[in-house]
Amino acid sequence: MPVGTQATVKGLSQRDLWEDLKAPIILANTYHLFLRPGHELIRDLGGLHKFMSWPGAILTDSGGFQVFSLSDLRRISEEGVTFQSHLDGDTHIFTPASTVDVQLALGSDIMMVLDECPPWPVSHEAARASMERTVRWAERAFSHYRPKIAESPTRHALFPIVQGSMFPDLRKECTERLLELDADGYAIGGLSVGEPRPFSMEMVEASEPLLPKDRPRYAMGVGMPDELPEYVARGIDMMDCVLPSRNARNGWLFTSEGKVVIKHAKHRADPGPLDPACSCYTCRNYSRAYLRHLFQAGEILFSSLATRHNLRRYLDIMGEIRQSILLGQFPEYLKTVRDKHAGTAEPA
Amino acid sequence: MPVGTQATVKGLSQRDLWEDLKAPIILANTYHLFLRPGHELIRDLGGLHKFMSWPGAILTDSGGFQVFSLSDLRRISEEGVTFQSHLDGDTHIFTPASTVDVQLALGSDIMMVLDECPPWPVSHEAARASMERTVRWAERAFSHYRPKIAESPTRHALFPIVQGSMFPDLRKECTERLLELDADGYAIGGLSVGEPRPFSMEMVEASEPLLPKDRPRYAMGVGMPDELPEYVARGIDMMDCVLPSRNARNGWLFTSEGKVVIKHAKHRADPGPLDPACSCYTCRNYSRAYLRHLFQAGEILFSSLATRHNLRRYLDIMGEIRQSILLGQFPEYLKTVRDKHAGTAEPA
Repeated sequence: MPVGTQATVKGLSQRDLWEDLKAPIILANTYHLFLRPGHELIRDLGGLHKFMSWPGAILTDSGGFQVFSLSDLRRISEEGVTFQSHLDGDTHIFTPASTVDVQLALGSDIMMVLDECPPWPVSHEAARASMERTVRWAERAFSHYRPKIAESPTRHALFPIVQGSMFPDLRKECTERLLELDADGYAIGGLSVGEPRPFSMEMVEASEPLLPKDRPRYAMGVGMPDELPEYVARGIDMMDCVLPSRNARNGWLFTSEGKVVIKHAKHRADPGPLDPACSCYTCRNYSRAYLRHLFQAGEILFSSLATRHNLRRYLDIMGEIRQSILLGQFPEYLKTVRDKHAGTAEPA
Repeated sequence: MPVGTQATVKGLSQRDLWEDLKAPIILANTYHLFLRPGHELIRDLGGLHKFMSWPGAILTDSGGFQVFSLSDLRRISEEGVTFQSHLDGDTHIFTPASTVDVQLALGSDIMMVLDECPPWPVSHEAARASMERTVRWAERAFSHYRPKIAESPTRHALFPIVQGSMFPDLRKECTERLLELDADGYAIGGLSVGEPRPFSMEMVEASEPLLPKDRPRYAMGVGMPDELPEYVARGIDMMDCVLPSRNARNGWLFTSEGKVVIKHAKHRADPGPLDPACSCYTCRNYSRAYLRHLFQAGEILFSSLATRHNLRRYLDIMGEIRQSILLGQFPEYLKTVRDKHAGTAEPA
């Protein structure tokens, strides 16, 4: 899922995203939209789909992660999390019920419960307390959500989030307790918080066997291109990540042959496309030399062209994975990716 | 002509410019491209059209104006202008011959001679000296250009530039002397240097009757939307201006009903398009409320969407002018624009 933090995937029009990239779903950030322009304004204007002119599906996070990462002052209590806006310092509170209401106002297709995402590393004791609060918050979110959604003419799924830091026993216990909510899908949170990659994979492995096979499993905030098949191999169906778009703006481009750091002098006079194997608008129309020029000159067209490419690369990888699964060839595909990654870990 | 300073109209892909806006010609800046990425690199990569993937025509200025406006240290002599790069402080020289060579390396369709553009106001004596140097430089540029172009398999026009500050007698004399060059077209420079608008119009009026009717006349660096028909009424065929794109990025939008300052609170919850009469991608897909949100959030998509609209507005105005001329109704059109402008001079 491309990330559209502030109701826009940075630098891309809806035509770029929908008609060209054919992205079926994007993620938007509840925290950001709650603060600006405000969920009530978006609701009054017909919801987030209409506001941002987006015909596809939208998943919204609960805002909890952003409160923990962006807000200077925050205080967690059983009621919820009180925080100061990073924009103007105003004090707000997110509760399990209020974040459901905000996401319903946005008209999100897939909503997330408010969770607590502890920093890493953290003690087992603190991780347990945090996980247990996350479970209680999820229960409260569902108690608020069920009667609301029963009356709603439109459908909006709500996913609980598995936490438990890097402790497999806590991950398992959290998963088991969240299963009682009988949700439409389940998210695995608390990954990509600075932990070594084997830990992230191990935490997914701890939860996955317990999750129902007929419901989507969503690994939040991952990952690098070579990690996508690793998560799928561990039973994950959905992922979101700012890496393709953020790295694009910083001139790190993902190709079928590995990473390209566009500012490197060797691309200065290169008339070839970024990735000859890529069908994106950027690769069909522009050379590495031109992209490097735009990057060096600080031109905003660079961000737009680079983001289109990196998102195309991510969507292509997911397409390859789906295709190989349908053909019964996923194990071979995974091996190929692992072998290739071992040979191209350094930037091109 | 949309302005593509660094081989990109800021924020727009070639599809936006060529397929959507159907801009037939853009302007690129010799000074900027000479410094970065360098005209020799662009020549080696097949010229500017290929480098920036642009199928339309390209006009390049001579770089003189940028030297005067951007370079900290510059020294004018009969030979040319010595200046320090605003990027790295390196010293370079532009001569009448070298700027032709740079523009030929770029593969420009319409090139400009090196001229001296004095600040405003300036004494008659200084303006005369500067104008006379501009004429001598134009003669040297053509002496260099003629044998080169005689051997060239491709066509590249070279326009001299009428100068003379705000003195009609100098403008007339400059025009008469430049006519001896029998150029494919003529530019009127030294406008938009801070002078009141009636002065700019008067300077065009001083030159225009002398210029051949069968050659394009190009007013450099103008103007506001309501000024376009005024220049055409004074015999001008071509104009370029950064106003539509620069104002777009700053949130000043031109509509058929006047200016819109998008940050104004009254647009906060406005579900309507920027300009209901506009057919651009932005007006067909987004609301004022969404555009204001993008602007307030500092999102780069705003620059792209706003630039598309403002350039569409400028191209629409030029289209209306052409249509009214073909129908023999230009005087009525001009009167309508003047009446409308008198009523909507304030931002909406």
